[in-house]
Amino acid sequence: MEKVNLADKLATFEDPWVPKVVGELNGQYVKVAKFEGEYVWHHHADEDELFLVVEGRIRILFRDREVALGPGEFCIVPRGVEHKPVADRKSSVLLFEPAATRNTGNVDHGYTIEAKELERI
Amino acid sequence: MEKVNLADKLATFEDPWVPKVVGELNGQYVKVAKFEGEYVWHHHADEDELFLVVEGRIRILFRDREVALGPGEFCIVPRGVEHKPVADRKSSVLLFEPAATRNTGNVDHGYTIEAKELERI
Repeated sequence: MEKVNLADKLATFEDPWVPKVVGELNGQYVKVAKFEGEYVWHHHADEDELFLVVEGRIRILFRDREVALGPGEFCIVPRGVEHKPVADRKSSVLLFEPAATRNTGNVDHGYTIEAKELERI
Repeated sequence: MEKVNLADKLATFEDPWVPKVVGELNGQYVKVAKFEGEYVWHHHADEDELFLVVEGRIRILFRDREVALGPGEFCIVPRGVEHKPVADRKSSVLLFEPAATRNTGNVDHGYTIEAKELERI
């Protein structure tokens, strides 16, 4: 029941593509992350994933199109749908997803962090 | 997989304390609402509830203290904890909670809207 200030949390790190847990409710995590450059194509077999832009601009690439998001805009990627987040400049993003979600989904990659190893800030 | 712009959604209504569904994932709803004045004391027996301020300022009263939130700040109210949201002026809030959550929890009130009757915008 503490207040969480997203800007304060986002000011504590710079490393892109390393989500940090800032809240937990109903088996879901609230995470923040910096996006910069290109992520990896992946999907989550059992989890839907919400991306809400806090600062900057990101694009979520799908195999047949893309969705561009600015501050105050979100997109929900349904389970099973391949996607690849991209940020042309460093941007700040809030994520909502089940606590068990693996950041690179079905793919093993240098960006992979197992859910149990996520940092809480 | 559509973009949702929170400001655009919030511009479509003015009535306070009437949450609108703007997204659904993993059995959870993403809602937006206008808060103005005093809500009713209540709790949710089985649901944790997240309040993220988009615009304005709200206070979440607990029986022993309160949490004040401005834009980009959130608070998670755990299940079972009595709370009463208050907004001294009209403010815009994003809520994240299980789809089954009843807005006034254990209390029947003029503000009550059953989960299945929530408007989607």
